Amino acid sequence: MLLVMQKGTTEDQVRAVVAAVEKKGYTARPIPGGDRVSIGILYNKGSVDAGHFLGLDGVKEVIPVTKPYKLVSREFRQENTQVKIGDAVFGNGTMPVIAGPCAVESQKQVLAIAASVKKAGATLFRGGAFKPRTSPYSFQGLGKKGLEYLARVREETGLPVVTEVMDTETFDLVEACVDVIQIGTRNMQNFSLLRRAGQSKKPVILKRGMSAMLEEWLMAAEYIMEEGNTNVILCERGVRTFVRHSRNTLDLSVVPAVKKESHLPVIVDPSHAAGVRDQVVWLAYASAALGVDGLMIEVHNHPEEALSDGAQSLYPDQFAQVMEKMRAIRTIIEAS
Amino acid sequence: MLLVMQKGTTEDQVRAVVAAVEKKGYTARPIPGGDRVSIGILYNKGSVDAGHFLGLDGVKEVIPVTKPYKLVSREFRQENTQVKIGDAVFGNGTMPVIAGPCAVESQKQVLAIAASVKKAGATLFRGGAFKPRTSPYSFQGLGKKGLEYLARVREETGLPVVTEVMDTETFDLVEACVDVIQIGTRNMQNFSLLRRAGQSKKPVILKRGMSAMLEEWLMAAEYIMEEGNTNVILCERGVRTFVRHSRNTLDLSVVPAVKKESHLPVIVDPSHAAGVRDQVVWLAYASAALGVDGLMIEVHNHPEEALSDGAQSLYPDQFAQVMEKMRAIRTIIEAS
Amino acid sequence: MLLVMQKGTTEDQVRAVVAAVEKKGYTARPIPGGDRVSIGILYNKGSVDAGHFLGLDGVKEVIPVTKPYKLVSREFRQENTQVKIGDAVFGNGTMPVIAGPCAVESQKQVLAIAASVKKAGATLFRGGAFKPRTSPYSFQGLGKKGLEYLARVREETGLPVVTEVMDTETFDLVEACVDVIQIGTRNMQNFSLLRRAGQSKKPVILKRGMSAMLEEWLMAAEYIMEEGNTNVILCERGVRTFVRHSRNTLDLSVVPAVKKESHLPVIVDPSHAAGVRDQVVWLAYASAALGVDGLMIEVHNHPEEALSDGAQSLYPDQFAQVMEKMRAIRTIIEAS
Amino acid sequence: MLLVMQKGTTEDQVRAVVAAVEKKGYTARPIPGGDRVSIGILYNKGSVDAGHFLGLDGVKEVIPVTKPYKLVSREFRQENTQVKIGDAVFGNGTMPVIAGPCAVESQKQVLAIAASVKKAGATLFRGGAFKPRTSPYSFQGLGKKGLEYLARVREETGLPVVTEVMDTETFDLVEACVDVIQIGTRNMQNFSLLRRAGQSKKPVILKRGMSAMLEEWLMAAEYIMEEGNTNVILCERGVRTFVRHSRNTLDLSVVPAVKKESHLPVIVDPSHAAGVRDQVVWLAYASAALGVDGLMIEVHNHPEEALSDGAQSLYPDQFAQVMEKMRAIRTIIEAS
Repeated sequence: MLLVMQKGTTEDQVRAVVAAVEKKGYTARPIPGGDRVSIGILYNKGSVDAGHFLGLDGVKEVIPVTKPYKLVSREFRQENTQVKIGDAVFGNGTMPVIAGPCAVESQKQVLAIAASVKKAGATLFRGGAFKPRTSPYSFQGLGKKGLEYLARVREETGLPVVTEVMDTETFDLVEACVDVIQIGTRNMQNFSLLRRAGQSKKPVILKRGMSAMLEEWLMAAEYIMEEGNTNVILCERGVRTFVRHSRNTLDLSVVPAVKKESHLPVIVDPSHAAGVRDQVVWLAYASAALGVDGLMIEVHNHPEEALSDGAQSLYPDQFAQVMEKMRAIRTIIEAS
Repeated sequence: MLLVMQKGTTEDQVRAVVAAVEKKGYTARPIPGGDRVSIGILYNKGSVDAGHFLGLDGVKEVIPVTKPYKLVSREFRQENTQVKIGDAVFGNGTMPVIAGPCAVESQKQVLAIAASVKKAGATLFRGGAFKPRTSPYSFQGLGKKGLEYLARVREETGLPVVTEVMDTETFDLVEACVDVIQIGTRNMQNFSLLRRAGQSKKPVILKRGMSAMLEEWLMAAEYIMEEGNTNVILCERGVRTFVRHSRNTLDLSVVPAVKKESHLPVIVDPSHAAGVRDQVVWLAYASAALGVDGLMIEVHNHPEEALSDGAQSLYPDQFAQVMEKMRAIRTIIEAS
Repeated sequence: MLLVMQKGTTEDQVRAVVAAVEKKGYTARPIPGGDRVSIGILYNKGSVDAGHFLGLDGVKEVIPVTKPYKLVSREFRQENTQVKIGDAVFGNGTMPVIAGPCAVESQKQVLAIAASVKKAGATLFRGGAFKPRTSPYSFQGLGKKGLEYLARVREETGLPVVTEVMDTETFDLVEACVDVIQIGTRNMQNFSLLRRAGQSKKPVILKRGMSAMLEEWLMAAEYIMEEGNTNVILCERGVRTFVRHSRNTLDLSVVPAVKKESHLPVIVDPSHAAGVRDQVVWLAYASAALGVDGLMIEVHNHPEEALSDGAQSLYPDQFAQVMEKMRAIRTIIEAS
Repeated sequence: MLLVMQKGTTEDQVRAVVAAVEKKGYTARPIPGGDRVSIGILYNKGSVDAGHFLGLDGVKEVIPVTKPYKLVSREFRQENTQVKIGDAVFGNGTMPVIAGPCAVESQKQVLAIAASVKKAGATLFRGGAFKPRTSPYSFQGLGKKGLEYLARVREETGLPVVTEVMDTETFDLVEACVDVIQIGTRNMQNFSLLRRAGQSKKPVILKRGMSAMLEEWLMAAEYIMEEGNTNVILCERGVRTFVRHSRNTLDLSVVPAVKKESHLPVIVDPSHAAGVRDQVVWLAYASAALGVDGLMIEVHNHPEEALSDGAQSLYPDQFAQVMEKMRAIRTIIEAS
């Protein structure tokens, strides 16, 4: 941490700040400059709370230097974490695709969609049983019944299944039924849920919050890892900006940024970012070209009848074509 | 809902869209225009899912008209909802102030702060026992012990106490100990927690999410009201923007906007918006001038020793002066 | 335009609003609904100013339907506009690449970089002679001298040259020297400059403003087209969001959105979006996969010595590899 | 500037970076830490370009410490700059109000409005003669005729007049006719215009750009001051965020932030921030309570007939009441 002092600070003021820092157990070192003195806080383990020093006499600004994350950081673990689920591996340079409808609507629906996405090359199946909806009057998912339908999809197709868990009450139930647990955008900083996920043996997909900074997202993953679960997959799904021509703004530069800071695999969900089918296709191609560790794409056999998010679901044929092109793009990217 | 058709749409296309709308059970009425036809969806109860129609042939855009909220809306209930807690009333034109430290740190600390904020005119006391922290390594609150300290504050000062609840597991405990339950920014769309709060007999303060649209915030309140709890107080605390000179950007125009759309009381927390003491004071004055239904302000007797958010906590003397000026401002605003 | 009336509006109020609309010369048609009446404003040519009706008694909300742009709109002209410059065509399905340094620094520098980017396949050369800089103390470009250096690049390499024009005073000079005129982000709504560009015979690259809505960007292009210049190329270069891990957030979904609304070609500048070299490479691949009509990429032979934007400039070798992969990605995208 | 090195950087790498920094003419000092080494760049005059060092081997992050502004900074000049225009003084603790219509529409209109705002206590009159409009088809202002009407307002009422200048071509004309020159939001980084304004003897109101960081805004003022004009008034008018319930989001915390960093007066324009009359009133009160150095408010005698921005213009009576309450609020704020 660096404390930038006001111009014209006296030596006494500097000494007082140094004393205040050292009283907290840190080492302080004044650094002279052309315009002003700065004071470095050295040898601290972990990050230091800016609040302790912001109000001190003569301190103009407090600049954090050390990142607060540990277990998730690339400096803690240099090689990529690989998360293996069925035949898919996230983080080993391949690009597994998770596909399926927004919500599980019926046994017949999920079986039909699963068959078609498997044929197109998807290696995991997704479908919501408990749905977080902005309105209490919207379809909230089939709940336990939906989990049973997903279990049958796995039996019949061999595809591991992914579903979102919304709270700690239903966590045991969801955990018992599915292969991968998804924590949704709205729950990215539901710390009790993160802790519970950290105690699970199942891999966790952690979606980025609607306006989460990179650091906040990584710290949410830190909560999970700190409880012992190292199988965390990060998922970018668009952030909220002033833009109105898409549902959210897909922040693709976060992918190389995550890879620089962290060893965890990062995948992209172009469906929720776009909100409309036409854009989803293009954002899927763009994601494949970006070297992501996987994608999550919504597919529905009858999007116009879907109980949620129909407008952003691909048709099965469309998905098959997208898969083919993404694979070809990926081959180019991997070639050295 | 209005379906705007592309220029040059044929009559057959219009007929097909009308048929699709009516198949869903709605009434469709084509509206000719200079450039293009639009199709109104009429007599629908509640909002209609845009996804059903966005992909239809010839449909260029889908514009929602009906708002999705019901119970929280000013059209549903014209007079202001008044939430009474102890001597304070939120929503009757007065401006009760909730004050106290970010976190409960010790019995001595909360008793000392409570005495000073009461003297300055605060009518409720706040303090966090369970703290949502970005980092798992930061101070997480005293938990149950903190609730006991709060209970003693109420006994000794007579001030009702407010604290945040982070999950459904600890809800019963928190509910039993405090007078007002706060749902924090990060949990604004934790729908399980909202439902549980809706089943409580205690009033609920619902903070706005970090990047919540007005409509999403009101829908979160709708979850609580729909379960039967009508004592909901909305709290603006700053939203995330590109700005870096304050922790968040306090969105004061949301206050008149909420009051136009909803009958619920709305208060402002300038402390979390600003993040630094100097700004808190000014934003408190601005909020008082805006006709808010109350404020929530962080006060600490030793901010530089605070275990969290020290930089944004007012000193007790500072708070007393702020209270005095806010009251004077309020008198002016109320004068017709 | 649709005027949404408050619930419980009386017939008299509706009649009064209809009268007010018709007094302005528009046709008004009340549209009954389940909850409330709306009033459609019909047969208007162009967009209608919401301000006229927002304050009328009983009007709750005003929803624009007609888009304000004409000449730039896909509805006005269905086939893609093709802008031909030298051997490059923007808008015909190919993907010409404009490359070069942020700023022209010396004759030697631009000749060296031009030779290498031409060899790598770039078909236009870029370089700033007049630089818009946040600080008056930063390097402001070589001005007229820089234009001369660019002219020599064209002579020696045959590459058409692109440079930014900052004001109407230097417009004639810039126009006389270069092949393509660029209007920068900070000038996207400098309407006098747009008008002057509209009177030019030279093609114009119009960069998107830092926080421009799609509609505002298209309206800026409309200013140029309205003066008679139809050779407009739109350029996405990242927008300002809360994000801090990249200089700006590249908004790739704007590309399909522009193509839906407009016939104008749209290119992407990944360099200014990213701000750091490592991200530029990935965003370039992503852009190529998105079906853009071209790219603009910063390249410098000695980035660490660059007078501006060194950190985001690619090395010539790096650029050559990026070009190769982008071409391969593009082949896949084009295959039906 | 602080260069944060990666964990495990070798001494050789540190030496190489130190050498690279010193080659640029700066002094470098390694600062050891618990986790990693940082390298401080010392004794630099003005800010250092991060781009020089970001790509160096072992450098993980570059953190700027020195602010790039000089003349505008509070450290350069400690006492408040006072800008005197007619009877009004901006920056001496009073709160002059500039009022008038968005656009000058006729001689009769401006005289009528000027009479009423003067009576209510406004001490400057505003009105647009050259209007920056998103659409080329919208009313663009009366131009020279409008300036004449404004001159007549000054003659008849004695109120100094403020109008926006859109380009350097019309600058002389505008400068000759009015008392204060306004540079609009869209031109905040039109550096040629800023330079021209810096050569004027007339005071300049510099509106904040739609998504300008505090630093960028101050640097725009630096351009004006650097040319010799010290009479600069900053004007906050709302910034672009994800929010849709107001036209822009008024960022009131920028006011204390500007005052901390700069000696220049800062005023608030609640009209453009809100976009609707009801919100304008409340934001005006909030601004008055914030200790601003002045306000700019739109007033129209027939808002529903206004050629632009009618919905956000106050009625004259409404304005008179707002003035009265703002004055009363201000008295409270000033009382120590």
